[in-house]
Amino acid sequence: MKIVIVGAVAGGASAAARARRLDEDAEIILIERGAEPSYANCGLPYYVGGQIESRDKLLVAPAAHLRQRHALDVRTRQEVTAIDRTGKSVAVKNLESGEVYDETYDRLIVSTGASPLRPPIPGIEGPNVLGLRDLADVDRMHEHVTSGNCRRAVIVGAGFIGIEVAENLVRRGIDVTVVELANQILPPWDEEMVRPLEAHLRDQGVTLRLGDSAEAFAECSTSDGKLTVKLKSGEELRADFAAVCIGVRPESKLALDAGIECGPRGGIVTNDFLQTSDPNIYAVGDVAQVKDFVTSEPTQIPLAGPANRQGRIAADHIFGRNSRYRGTQGTAVVGIFGKTAAMTGHSEKLLRRDSRPYEKIYIHPNDHAGYYPGATQMTLKLLFDPDVGRIWGAQAVGTNGVDKRIDVIAMAMHAGMTVYDLEEAELCYAPQYGSAKDAVNMAGFVASGLLRGDHPHVHLSELTTESESGEHVLLDVRTEQEFANGHLNNAQNIPLEALRNRISELPKDCRIISYCQVGQRGYMATRLLQRKGFDAANLSGGYQLVQKSGNLLNT
Amino acid sequence: MKIVIVGAVAGGASAAARARRLDEDAEIILIERGAEPSYANCGLPYYVGGQIESRDKLLVAPAAHLRQRHALDVRTRQEVTAIDRTGKSVAVKNLESGEVYDETYDRLIVSTGASPLRPPIPGIEGPNVLGLRDLADVDRMHEHVTSGNCRRAVIVGAGFIGIEVAENLVRRGIDVTVVELANQILPPWDEEMVRPLEAHLRDQGVTLRLGDSAEAFAECSTSDGKLTVKLKSGEELRADFAAVCIGVRPESKLALDAGIECGPRGGIVTNDFLQTSDPNIYAVGDVAQVKDFVTSEPTQIPLAGPANRQGRIAADHIFGRNSRYRGTQGTAVVGIFGKTAAMTGHSEKLLRRDSRPYEKIYIHPNDHAGYYPGATQMTLKLLFDPDVGRIWGAQAVGTNGVDKRIDVIAMAMHAGMTVYDLEEAELCYAPQYGSAKDAVNMAGFVASGLLRGDHPHVHLSELTTESESGEHVLLDVRTEQEFANGHLNNAQNIPLEALRNRISELPKDCRIISYCQVGQRGYMATRLLQRKGFDAANLSGGYQLVQKSGNLLNT
Repeated sequence: MKIVIVGAVAGGASAAARARRLDEDAEIILIERGAEPSYANCGLPYYVGGQIESRDKLLVAPAAHLRQRHALDVRTRQEVTAIDRTGKSVAVKNLESGEVYDETYDRLIVSTGASPLRPPIPGIEGPNVLGLRDLADVDRMHEHVTSGNCRRAVIVGAGFIGIEVAENLVRRGIDVTVVELANQILPPWDEEMVRPLEAHLRDQGVTLRLGDSAEAFAECSTSDGKLTVKLKSGEELRADFAAVCIGVRPESKLALDAGIECGPRGGIVTNDFLQTSDPNIYAVGDVAQVKDFVTSEPTQIPLAGPANRQGRIAADHIFGRNSRYRGTQGTAVVGIFGKTAAMTGHSEKLLRRDSRPYEKIYIHPNDHAGYYPGATQMTLKLLFDPDVGRIWGAQAVGTNGVDKRIDVIAMAMHAGMTVYDLEEAELCYAPQYGSAKDAVNMAGFVASGLLRGDHPHVHLSELTTESESGEHVLLDVRTEQEFANGHLNNAQNIPLEALRNRISELPKDCRIISYCQVGQRGYMATRLLQRKGFDAANLSGGYQLVQKSGNLLNT
Repeated sequence: MKIVIVGAVAGGASAAARARRLDEDAEIILIERGAEPSYANCGLPYYVGGQIESRDKLLVAPAAHLRQRHALDVRTRQEVTAIDRTGKSVAVKNLESGEVYDETYDRLIVSTGASPLRPPIPGIEGPNVLGLRDLADVDRMHEHVTSGNCRRAVIVGAGFIGIEVAENLVRRGIDVTVVELANQILPPWDEEMVRPLEAHLRDQGVTLRLGDSAEAFAECSTSDGKLTVKLKSGEELRADFAAVCIGVRPESKLALDAGIECGPRGGIVTNDFLQTSDPNIYAVGDVAQVKDFVTSEPTQIPLAGPANRQGRIAADHIFGRNSRYRGTQGTAVVGIFGKTAAMTGHSEKLLRRDSRPYEKIYIHPNDHAGYYPGATQMTLKLLFDPDVGRIWGAQAVGTNGVDKRIDVIAMAMHAGMTVYDLEEAELCYAPQYGSAKDAVNMAGFVASGLLRGDHPHVHLSELTTESESGEHVLLDVRTEQEFANGHLNNAQNIPLEALRNRISELPKDCRIISYCQVGQRGYMATRLLQRKGFDAANLSGGYQLVQKSGNLLNT
């Protein structure tokens, strides 16, 4: 068996190592355009920022290692320029010597990744407009930030990489402005979830220009920087360099030119075994279009974990194993100056786009028992099917323990579990680590209570509409002190503790929408009022969600 | 509906609050022997150590709060002394006034917890032999440690509480000796997993006396302390006080006296709704015998999380809900001077005791990508069914991210998943948080590889036996430098990188057992040798497990 693998980072390197473990005698050729195979792509921003001090750390499996340990034929600085499917061979160009040669294969694995989008904006090819995809890019950016001549940078794009680069440039003492076309950072997240992170970025000195975009880059020579970035809004930013991090596109031209089927967003179409439309050719990693785990529909989610698993599965299939790729779930995490945002599955905006029925709840639990010092609060949003309670997705933002809760929910989703299962989860509890009712249990309680009809709630967006019709009473059940510190427009304050005695103050002929700080007292008030014959509902996520999402209903 | 609840801590308080949310008009009487309901039991050791500074923090739901917020009839310092099942009433004694009265019920919930074992050792009732169950106990211990007169303490029992108390006394500058009957600390864990924690405790200045027990306590008056603790071994320890933390027994006498069925270990027998043999009487929390989640057999596991869920389910059932308790899984975590030990499901010793077929694997993954600074290593043991791969249990010991991996595996177990599912789990990855192949994935890879026959392995215990028969070659595939720093007796060193060239040095007619540091290179060597026609296996857990478990095979 002779296997040629094009691209030697996450998916390609995994496929090669797995193939070797499955067959000691196979000929395995790993062709990599760059100077090094298998580098730590996800670590690049942290090398820019100096968190990772040594560049060698990024080389997780150097060529020598792959050759010696796995007996792989690693060819770096070589590029596959064409696939001859009939002849089962690829044309390879040696980027050092210019030499071109053909290499035959029994099976070909395309793992060419995805290339950063570089729209044809004037000046984008200039020397001070950088990207961050590979080692060459990181060397260039590292050189800029350590030159001593950089004081200001503009980052275009506030996705994962844009935000990670922002943090790392600030760590280098550079003044950072982030420009993002969407009206929020981290576009895959739902807007209200990232509002607190935007505030946190601003607190760290990062300037955000949301709902704006770069229209031109121009070299200049001023005391403010070497580059002018012209924005759509008309604003002109000065900087020493710009980094364009506005997303990626599957690098599938090689496959497309060979007549291999690609999807509408450019990814190579694959089946559950990662085979392309040519059964001798596999595609893995960011270049592949795969199945969405939640919906089974085609998707493209560039993530390192899935790329690694896909490489493994492609190798398995080549050697007759029955491994199948189950689909990509979209589990992701990003750190932002000590805060953490993590998500899994579908966002609300995606569910809405696909007209999929859903319900949602918000909770604000502590990462561990509040009675033990150092507890930090997170906000967790759970999205689920309104009929059977199957989990569509979850997002969490906080300081500690955020990735843990999303990992647990990701596992539950992977098992096809429902919100009712989250109620019953038995998780680690000691006061430093969690709570007797863990955040995951709490999410289950609230979501299940909603589906069972125990816990009718109203979302902020509905409230705004309902307010106008004026047909409800807005009941703040927090303490008088909390109420005095800020509350929703037109709210009436009856603290939960006094509600039983003062219940006659409330009208029976209109709906009562109660709220508290995080939702728990509001829930208790709702239950109480329901049992006393009122039409009651709780404001989902409480006053805290109103504040965090920057809603202006509060006074 | 009139509900009487006996005992107002985790299970009882949860049942009461849930009952109120389900029925605003029910009469709910919560009877608590102690001075305060609903205190943070799991926080007691940390109040002793001063981590939790204020005693008020332990009162998570004070009586006034339960009365006002949930309209509960809370009666503290009152004790239920008898149940009249025919008359559906309980006899209650007011511990302040001595008054005795009867209280009728429609439904009774027994949540009396479990009391610490106090074996009839001479002197155990003395003033300096303490326990740690409730607020009265914690006040006594707090007084001792803050008196300024305590320099030495002996803790009898190295379970969760014993170890937590040890850490907290050290935090107070007290010299601690822990005496444990078993030959290991944390008896629910498997021995080899806690060996590194024992070393860590010793590093922190804790003296361990394993395989020993207290035979007598005697008051004395010496410069070394006020108490002599005589051990079975003959050793006499001097201390200012002793703490007896050797386990608990369900406090089920009340139920037993009323003719309610109890199990062999003293727990009140319950069904899936937490009903006892009297359908009007429920038992929840540490006093109840429940179902083991993994095996569905009766068990008793005193944990706060399950107690809370049981209270909720009992209240649900009283009000006609169809909630069912799924069983207790045994998920637990303990912190030890910055290290963490967590487990879920069954241990190997439990599986062995029950003659249940199992396989096991060990891995030593980092908590996050090794190329990002601050990664710490953990050891993870996975136990599973050798036929279908269903997960029986997992244990992990390390510094960071230990509770996360056990929580994810606990969720997978709750879903009835197998080791093959762990391979495919899609978990959070950014370099500060995890790895593209997370520890959970790695456990899945190794366990699945074993079940598929890709990865034959040998356990240390088998090796010892095999060594004697002398019918294998022990192959160390680490580097020469690693080999020189220590290796197994009679091992031959061929580094993995050189193995292909030097394979002729190995005999084809006997088994080759390879090993490396953690198991990964050993696995690659095993695959290589297998494919070349050798009878090969890998040493499970590698040299590191040999070292960590304190095995003396190494030289």
